[in-house]
Amino acid sequence: MDYKIRAARKEDCKDIARMIMELAVFEKMPDQVKISYKELERDGFCQNPFFECLIAEVSDAHRSKCGNGIGKSLMSKVAKIAAEKQCVRLQLSVLDWNSPARDFYAAKGAQDLTDSEGWHFIRFDGLSLDNLVKEAPQD
Amino acid sequence: MDYKIRAARKEDCKDIARMIMELAVFEKMPDQVKISYKELERDGFCQNPFFECLIAEVSDAHRSKCGNGIGKSLMSKVAKIAAEKQCVRLQLSVLDWNSPARDFYAAKGAQDLTDSEGWHFIRFDGLSLDNLVKEAPQD
Repeated sequence: MDYKIRAARKEDCKDIARMIMELAVFEKMPDQVKISYKELERDGFCQNPFFECLIAEVSDAHRSKCGNGIGKSLMSKVAKIAAEKQCVRLQLSVLDWNSPARDFYAAKGAQDLTDSEGWHFIRFDGLSLDNLVKEAPQD
Repeated sequence: MDYKIRAARKEDCKDIARMIMELAVFEKMPDQVKISYKELERDGFCQNPFFECLIAEVSDAHRSKCGNGIGKSLMSKVAKIAAEKQCVRLQLSVLDWNSPARDFYAAKGAQDLTDSEGWHFIRFDGLSLDNLVKEAPQD
């Protein structure tokens, strides 16, 4: 195996920010990326971090190949960490037109809860979030 | 105002578990509730808690009324806490047939990302999660 999976460190945040943007470009929504490596450093490497992250360190020889199983290894490692923390579900989101990802998750036995149970994602941000905040009861 | 919103305490977990079940009954999926108050106590009241929770303390006089704005106050309070933590999004999930909730979120300016962008929920649990864990690379 010529790659290694390890916990992210603070100094990885510039690379993480770059990969978030690469994913958003693939998902055809680069304009939605507002986060910078500074926020990642702040939110992921504080007392009660908002997220954890794994990094795959890949040798140059390996890098040129597609379908090399790194994504699968990363997801399995996340599942393993989740199991160690006694989680009983691993949930993620996928775009309807991303057939390779949807087929992959289905082949691994995951359920599409939007198709099977009718779950929809709802998001407040920008003005709608500001308005909610303004309506909050005073302490 | 005859109700008060406050942070949940460990001794609220039995009530929280009961309300999770009440919501699941409304959502027509009570069989999916596996969590007990013991897990809530473990996961919410440890060093790095997995969740935070707000409780609305309601007087008996208030309890009998519907549409009393408590749900709205709870959501606004969550938004306020999120803003204090410098979050820029508040996301949640809703069932397609739950028109009152969907209409409420829409009236508050939230986006339905499943309708507008095609996001689907994917879940691994049970056997599919166990299988992922087994495939994880060794440390």
